[in-house]
Amino acid sequence: MTTLPTAFDLNSFDLKTYLAEYGQLVVQALERNITRYPSGNRVTHAMRYSLFAGGKRLRPILCMAAAEAVGGNKDDVMDVAAALEFIHTYSLIHDDLPALDDDDYRRGNLTCHKAFDEATAILAGDGLLTSAFEVLARAAGSGPFSPEKLLKVIARISQAAGCNGMILGQMLDIEGESKSYTQTELENVHNKKTGAMMEVSVFSGAYLGGGTPEQISALDTYAVHTGLAFQVADDILNVVGDPKVMGKAVGTDAARDKSTYPALLGLDGARDFADQLINKALQAIVSFDNKCDPLRSIATYIITRSR
Amino acid sequence: MTTLPTAFDLNSFDLKTYLAEYGQLVVQALERNITRYPSGNRVTHAMRYSLFAGGKRLRPILCMAAAEAVGGNKDDVMDVAAALEFIHTYSLIHDDLPALDDDDYRRGNLTCHKAFDEATAILAGDGLLTSAFEVLARAAGSGPFSPEKLLKVIARISQAAGCNGMILGQMLDIEGESKSYTQTELENVHNKKTGAMMEVSVFSGAYLGGGTPEQISALDTYAVHTGLAFQVADDILNVVGDPKVMGKAVGTDAARDKSTYPALLGLDGARDFADQLINKALQAIVSFDNKCDPLRSIATYIITRSR
Repeated sequence: MTTLPTAFDLNSFDLKTYLAEYGQLVVQALERNITRYPSGNRVTHAMRYSLFAGGKRLRPILCMAAAEAVGGNKDDVMDVAAALEFIHTYSLIHDDLPALDDDDYRRGNLTCHKAFDEATAILAGDGLLTSAFEVLARAAGSGPFSPEKLLKVIARISQAAGCNGMILGQMLDIEGESKSYTQTELENVHNKKTGAMMEVSVFSGAYLGGGTPEQISALDTYAVHTGLAFQVADDILNVVGDPKVMGKAVGTDAARDKSTYPALLGLDGARDFADQLINKALQAIVSFDNKCDPLRSIATYIITRSR
Repeated sequence: MTTLPTAFDLNSFDLKTYLAEYGQLVVQALERNITRYPSGNRVTHAMRYSLFAGGKRLRPILCMAAAEAVGGNKDDVMDVAAALEFIHTYSLIHDDLPALDDDDYRRGNLTCHKAFDEATAILAGDGLLTSAFEVLARAAGSGPFSPEKLLKVIARISQAAGCNGMILGQMLDIEGESKSYTQTELENVHNKKTGAMMEVSVFSGAYLGGGTPEQISALDTYAVHTGLAFQVADDILNVVGDPKVMGKAVGTDAARDKSTYPALLGLDGARDFADQLINKALQAIVSFDNKCDPLRSIATYIITRSR
């Protein structure tokens, strides 16, 4: 592993406790926002099933951590953080569908269409995506930011989630199953499929948290590299991961003959590449004070995680 | 048919020309907004396929007509109108999927998943829904309304499209295939499935067009009744319609043993009910001047249309 560019001592920050504590705040925000919808019907039931099936809550935590990194208050961005997790959860439900990745398990539980049925899973995904924007639009007044700033965040989140971002990435990823991508093409796919939403999670927190343009730009560089590293690590875990720890099948990429970093660079090459990306991410935020330590720690965690 | 409550002369208003002219403006607004996304990929191609496959453009036209009914300018709400049609088109793509209604034809063309494939259709629907909110968030400055007002419209549209509205209605509609609804239950299903989006289309136009609370309230009553009448007419057309004119199959509700108005009230009873609803819709806007004639004419068209 390459040397970290700062004096930041990984051992001095208790990431496990941080992720547990902030993850719990995310769950509370999800709960507060999902109760807006009538319970006792199948689609809300399915939305709750997937929303509360665990998960790292990485995107909302990135949003909260970015707000705090620039001196903002995480409480002000909790609804925006919840909306980001709504969108992430919808994307998992739809990606798992038989017509797409056809996965039976996610985080050790049956996927939504297996626990319910395909129609319900399609509608539950649609419901979470739609609700995300209701949560966002109603977040005016949840923090000391103007309606103009909130509209800009909504525009950026929809752009990242949409056909210039995550959805296009997913389409290109599917098309990649029948052709070989170069490394540059693969980076484009992953920047869109995974990177765009992680990048906008950091942006939303930093922007609504009151960051300066320079801070926001530095955090954006951090997010781009961390987002790509996350996907490289995902590809590696699909080769060497423990399905029991991961709660989902491994070896599926190779079975589908998908373009991945291990396939392109070999396992060691992919690991080196991930290290380089995280190094660049940490360099981008080298001038930030210790309020940025959670983001530093998350970047390192992303390539050392086991699930 | 019951007597219309106003001196409004249906023959004095050329609805056909109006719908053609306003429909063309909608198409231009759709084109302007869809070009935001990169072309040359399968998902954008599928989005365009469904977006430009014709259709009555009823929701965006209701929005434009409501803006003008309160003295506003239709140009100011064109992007909002386009977003409403994005959402409507996404809902049709997903409703047509094999796991839901499993329809092969829509407006005389192959449905999206038949023209492309299921994965692409799911993503194209997701893409249109997501893009709708990008279009909405970027509509600040497209008219003389404040960011606060635009946020309220985004919240209302997502509420109408979501799990208190269209998506819940679709779920209840699917569940209705295996049980019998009473008329009250059926009205609830349709108010959510079809009514909510038509209501919010009228609201968005009236609110952003600068309507008074009284005007907005009257137009809301108009929209609720017109929306329900639209669904009753849809049920009737599914029994007596000409598949060649409609561009889709008929008799499908009876084949699925679905709860419909003709099934509950008989054909004549359903027609009477639709007439009563339109009568109430027209009564609600009786005090509006002739700038409201398009809305009056549309209400009447809705129950006399052949597709």
